[in-house]
Amino acid sequence: MAVTPASTPGSSSVENLDLDPAFALHRGGKIEIRSTIPVRDADDLSLAYTPGVARVCTAIAETPSLVHDYTWASRVVAVVSDGTAVLGLGDIGPAAAMPVMEGKALLFKEFGGVDAVPICLDCTDVDALVETVARLAPSFGGINLEDISAPRCFEVEARLRDLLDIPVFHDDQHGTAIVVLAALQNAARLTGRTLGDLRAVVAGAGASGVAVTRILLEAGIGDIAVSDSKGLIYQGREGLNPVKESLARDTNKARLTGSTEEALAGADVFVGLSGSTVTEQAIASMAEGSIVFALSNPTPEVHPEAAARHAAVVATGRSDFPNQINNVLAFPGVFRGALDVRASTITENMKVAAADALAAVVGDDLTATYVIPSPFDERVAPAVTAAVAAQARADGVARL
Amino acid sequence: MAVTPASTPGSSSVENLDLDPAFALHRGGKIEIRSTIPVRDADDLSLAYTPGVARVCTAIAETPSLVHDYTWASRVVAVVSDGTAVLGLGDIGPAAAMPVMEGKALLFKEFGGVDAVPICLDCTDVDALVETVARLAPSFGGINLEDISAPRCFEVEARLRDLLDIPVFHDDQHGTAIVVLAALQNAARLTGRTLGDLRAVVAGAGASGVAVTRILLEAGIGDIAVSDSKGLIYQGREGLNPVKESLARDTNKARLTGSTEEALAGADVFVGLSGSTVTEQAIASMAEGSIVFALSNPTPEVHPEAAARHAAVVATGRSDFPNQINNVLAFPGVFRGALDVRASTITENMKVAAADALAAVVGDDLTATYVIPSPFDERVAPAVTAAVAAQARADGVARL
Repeated sequence: MAVTPASTPGSSSVENLDLDPAFALHRGGKIEIRSTIPVRDADDLSLAYTPGVARVCTAIAETPSLVHDYTWASRVVAVVSDGTAVLGLGDIGPAAAMPVMEGKALLFKEFGGVDAVPICLDCTDVDALVETVARLAPSFGGINLEDISAPRCFEVEARLRDLLDIPVFHDDQHGTAIVVLAALQNAARLTGRTLGDLRAVVAGAGASGVAVTRILLEAGIGDIAVSDSKGLIYQGREGLNPVKESLARDTNKARLTGSTEEALAGADVFVGLSGSTVTEQAIASMAEGSIVFALSNPTPEVHPEAAARHAAVVATGRSDFPNQINNVLAFPGVFRGALDVRASTITENMKVAAADALAAVVGDDLTATYVIPSPFDERVAPAVTAAVAAQARADGVARL
Repeated sequence: MAVTPASTPGSSSVENLDLDPAFALHRGGKIEIRSTIPVRDADDLSLAYTPGVARVCTAIAETPSLVHDYTWASRVVAVVSDGTAVLGLGDIGPAAAMPVMEGKALLFKEFGGVDAVPICLDCTDVDALVETVARLAPSFGGINLEDISAPRCFEVEARLRDLLDIPVFHDDQHGTAIVVLAALQNAARLTGRTLGDLRAVVAGAGASGVAVTRILLEAGIGDIAVSDSKGLIYQGREGLNPVKESLARDTNKARLTGSTEEALAGADVFVGLSGSTVTEQAIASMAEGSIVFALSNPTPEVHPEAAARHAAVVATGRSDFPNQINNVLAFPGVFRGALDVRASTITENMKVAAADALAAVVGDDLTATYVIPSPFDERVAPAVTAAVAAQARADGVARL
């Protein structure tokens, strides 16, 4: 196939981009493959490759579980995206999603010692995504789904969880949910309440909004009202998709209608996962000792300094304010723990155990500006790993 | 999904396997992911991941070719198999194929500095394989197909070459073909002949047999007769598949019928890629100064010592005899060269250029037991890389 040279920007334009340190850092990518064994001579080669490798292949063909002992498959995670909901950037396609998936692989390794490979897929149909990931599965010990738009992400994850006997985890959902639950547990403790005492408003019914709502319900929160771009979700609202219909059944006991801001009056907790904004006035209308997690990035739903004038605890998704809700607190340890015991799946209990372990790292140092540990706290990944592995055993999904 | 603990062999049986050094070496796999940039603090994190990474994603969404500069995608090769024709072991499935594909990734890195990821697919249908690899393509700079059974491998490769604008290379075909051509050029030179002077018999019409035949025709060999399990392939033979029909048209000018051994009488060259055997007597019936490449592994078609009683040059696929025909002499440099110039494909000329470069490494040291360099000759990969890159430019498929 002959081609004419592509209209690649000349080196000068790339050099201009490289003036931005983010571009300079990304030059050539952020990860590489390394060998873990030597290949110095013909003897090494005859063991690592033919003829020696044939004995290992034959053994696995006869005893399939040996693949876990003699290949990297059981310790490597595929970070899979279709590029349809990348960060706050939307549907930018698989190639433009690569820097994020590669970054995720980097963080897996740096924070959890987990090998991970970025896989950006050139398809967006649910059937195609499920089928493709299922075909890839023999090469991997776990599947981390990432930046797949809602509501497709829910079906893709659910079907892959049914099909595969390895962990499948949509990080935008469950990573965020675990860290929010941990932070909220600590915020409740700081303000002398339990989760059952709290009425929350979650703005956003995308991947993270739905998963946060689900884990908070699981953890026994008093009540939650969830809103989307059309306002609060309640039973009987016209045109709800199946995911939102199910949310409507399980949330909003008070059957509030109207806007996010209206629902905030008297509420204890606000969790913003919407990319929209709420006014300082609405925050001021919340109950005494309120908890505000304004998690949209890079622009929180309300400025954290404005929120702090009224709320007892404020968290954001940003590293330049206190209490950063960052998925990297969860996913490396969650997969490390799951892979360590060769878990067949990641149960709801394992997610809650991860949140509990994460919350416990804060311990007696708990303050309004320290409800969640720093990503660089070296106690985090080991604590999450141990909790997830133990819960996998307790739930009967561990195979080691 | 709850499971009962799998019937994994206990540690004792794995310890027994580990008494074999090939198993001990394979323990836990042979490769890992490493980060190429530091993530020491929040500043690093904000550049490698959010929010910094968003600027890189946006730039790629606007100028797609920037993916080559700012991700690893353009420098990483997928080593893809469906596990249907693994080494000489046959259809052992994707999991049991993993050690080979991982070994290949190891060799890519060690010999060519090429990052490669093993991808074993749980599907064998041609449409499914083509579709799956095409969906994966945005994540990779090249596709190395491996151990996919004939004749499906021909269609899979041909369709992917048409679909994708990155190199697609079925190593069982072209890696072997390149090394055989290089060795045969040197063997001809040693015995004072050119390729055009030679009549060859190729035993085996699978992936490597077909590709070796094609590259020898391309390089101008005098004549070739090809045999499969039913004997020689000739025009008009009943029940030929399309690949063999095409071979029949282009080979066997003398229209020989009968067996491989019958065709060897008076022939100059034997290339065994069949897994079958030929008698010493048949080798003895070849022309003066004959060239015998008995490449089946681990058991050559004829014992190399028996062949050496009659032939001027003998080569095998084994490291414990002289003149090892080993694909590792080709594929690392072929992909290194193709990736270095961002080639859109690997042309026939690029394969021949690789063979010429490989043959030239032997130079004036040429003897009957040294017609091809050692895999550990450090001149090999740079020579192949340079030749492939230069030929890509000459053929107009280079994009850098």
